[in-house]
Amino acid sequence: MSITVGKPIHCKAAVAREAGKPLVIEEVIVAPPSVHEVRIKILCTSLCHSDLTLWNLKEPPGYFPRILGHEAVGIVESVGEDVKEFAEGDFVMPVFLANCGDCGDCKHRKSNQCSTLPFKLSNLMPRDETGRFTNTKGETLYHTLHVSSFTQYTVVDVAHLTKVDPQIPPNRACLLSCGVSTGVGAAWRTAQVEEGSTVAIFGLGAIGLAVAEGARLCGATRIIGVDVNASKFEIGKKFGVTDFVNPMDNATKSASEIINEMTDGGADYCFECVGMASLVEEAFACCRKGWGKTVVLGVDRPMSKLSLSSHDVLQNGKILTGSLFGGLKAKSDISTLVKWYLDKKLQLDEFVTHEMKFEDINKAFELLLEGKSLRCVLWMNT
Amino acid sequence: MSITVGKPIHCKAAVAREAGKPLVIEEVIVAPPSVHEVRIKILCTSLCHSDLTLWNLKEPPGYFPRILGHEAVGIVESVGEDVKEFAEGDFVMPVFLANCGDCGDCKHRKSNQCSTLPFKLSNLMPRDETGRFTNTKGETLYHTLHVSSFTQYTVVDVAHLTKVDPQIPPNRACLLSCGVSTGVGAAWRTAQVEEGSTVAIFGLGAIGLAVAEGARLCGATRIIGVDVNASKFEIGKKFGVTDFVNPMDNATKSASEIINEMTDGGADYCFECVGMASLVEEAFACCRKGWGKTVVLGVDRPMSKLSLSSHDVLQNGKILTGSLFGGLKAKSDISTLVKWYLDKKLQLDEFVTHEMKFEDINKAFELLLEGKSLRCVLWMNT
Repeated sequence: MSITVGKPIHCKAAVAREAGKPLVIEEVIVAPPSVHEVRIKILCTSLCHSDLTLWNLKEPPGYFPRILGHEAVGIVESVGEDVKEFAEGDFVMPVFLANCGDCGDCKHRKSNQCSTLPFKLSNLMPRDETGRFTNTKGETLYHTLHVSSFTQYTVVDVAHLTKVDPQIPPNRACLLSCGVSTGVGAAWRTAQVEEGSTVAIFGLGAIGLAVAEGARLCGATRIIGVDVNASKFEIGKKFGVTDFVNPMDNATKSASEIINEMTDGGADYCFECVGMASLVEEAFACCRKGWGKTVVLGVDRPMSKLSLSSHDVLQNGKILTGSLFGGLKAKSDISTLVKWYLDKKLQLDEFVTHEMKFEDINKAFELLLEGKSLRCVLWMNT
Repeated sequence: MSITVGKPIHCKAAVAREAGKPLVIEEVIVAPPSVHEVRIKILCTSLCHSDLTLWNLKEPPGYFPRILGHEAVGIVESVGEDVKEFAEGDFVMPVFLANCGDCGDCKHRKSNQCSTLPFKLSNLMPRDETGRFTNTKGETLYHTLHVSSFTQYTVVDVAHLTKVDPQIPPNRACLLSCGVSTGVGAAWRTAQVEEGSTVAIFGLGAIGLAVAEGARLCGATRIIGVDVNASKFEIGKKFGVTDFVNPMDNATKSASEIINEMTDGGADYCFECVGMASLVEEAFACCRKGWGKTVVLGVDRPMSKLSLSSHDVLQNGKILTGSLFGGLKAKSDISTLVKWYLDKKLQLDEFVTHEMKFEDINKAFELLLEGKSLRCVLWMNT
């Protein structure tokens, strides 16, 4: 048994102290796990756009001081009371979306929305709404999305954790903790893309490219990428993107008009991966009448409204839906994605544009802000 | 062969001459069917709310003078060139939504949106955009939804026509030409209601009750009807409605809040059958997170917009879709519904609250306007 069991652990964390300001590497104190909780030594974490969004928010759900980060993989250091599913030394992945496995929703084949611990933009532990992080000055540091991975140790609820086959390297596994799984899952689980179908993806960031990868795995034959950055087409090709639409290249036609023409009536599946209500409307406008499905993955501002013509919705038989964590259940679906990677079906290496030491985290933020990285992996063992 | 073949037919029609004003029974001249067209002697027609809507519109898609009516059944009097599917004497049903049977959409298992003759609020024949009705003064009379059934004879494109088992009486068959099929189909084909599921129906007019009937046939165990008219609950029970919510009875909670409480998190399937964008939002708000599906059937004003929270769409994994003609393909699905009626599975008799002579059509309009009828069947052989 680890000598740290039951005791607070002192370690390094990158603390967000002010909206939009560089993180500060500090010594933090991580409390032992409580009932139904697990303390993890993080091996690798990667940066997701949602971290940038939360980091930039001056008002809730922006909170400071806080430990950001929610894409990660690690090793169980110790477990709290009533934890039977995990043991010291397990290779595990924290996931922002709970999967208790016991509630009606977790047991329902169609849902990934745990009703024991429903999704919320929380800044504390999910069950008792208290924190596990303090610093040497006695200050409380907020959590992020029930994960907080920009720290060498974190505490996670068992519902937010899944075991992973240790054959997958940690600097690849961490990508499946949020972004890549969300994109692949949106094509595979939410949209259920079929062989031979046509897909349009609005926004070719990591999520959009992961949707392409998922659509490719599902057998889509035409994958149209839409982005205002022309360089995305070359990257997109790696993930199966066959056609590219840059809305800036056409002064007279919208992306939806171009796609409707290219596909003779619209794509079978459209994905909005940017987080703009107006782009959801564009995506909906170029998904095929009669069966086309538009999937919303992008996170827009909290009060944003989506406006659709009532007649279009009624008359066209199109489907609109959203996809949180790609419709995946952490405890059952992640292992499938890991297997696909180990079987060389699912591409993960291609998403990792940068790897660096944890201490260089602010450099990783800059790269993502400047659109220069897809995924930057941080190694915590420094 | 009928002596009228190839010749214009003089017969009686109820002509809408002015928005919202009583129809005028007049002698009209029905031209012979052109290529791909069939002339039909209407046996029975029934009034659908869409007729009232079009009748009330001063501006397009309201047109005058016009022959309204689109729920009907009749006998083929003669066929135009290149018509192989129908012959004189066939018992047939016109349908406002085309089903050519040959295009990619008609052949696609998921779609009922014919791309040869796509849906539009037309006032002429679909292929050559000309009319078949005149009167003795040489005046042209507009068509309605490619059917026009408030006349003893009409001309319909083959794509808008399907043969029907003549064992079903005409005063029941006509209901399947639009309203009842739309409701039953929305539950059966569009939503694919599953056994044991919970359904909420906003608006218990004929369409909403037909949704209940469809949900009942699909094995739904709980069917919640929502209507501001308390008397609808008694009628609803005939069609399987198990619970009733009258939003007027509760000053503090909305219908969606009440339904979320009743169902511990929302109905599996919600149907909006009134035609109000705000009610679609209510329906969406009480369909179950993770898998709930909201189906729009009600026809709102042309420019009406539907506004949903981007975050709700993204985070809740709910599905929004529309259902035109209940997702049914006229040429294959109507015969199933007819069979269900003949096998005493599908209830149709219960929808017919009134039957009268064609000449009394204005009385039928009044009854529907006053909310006193579900379906009023008009007999044309007068």
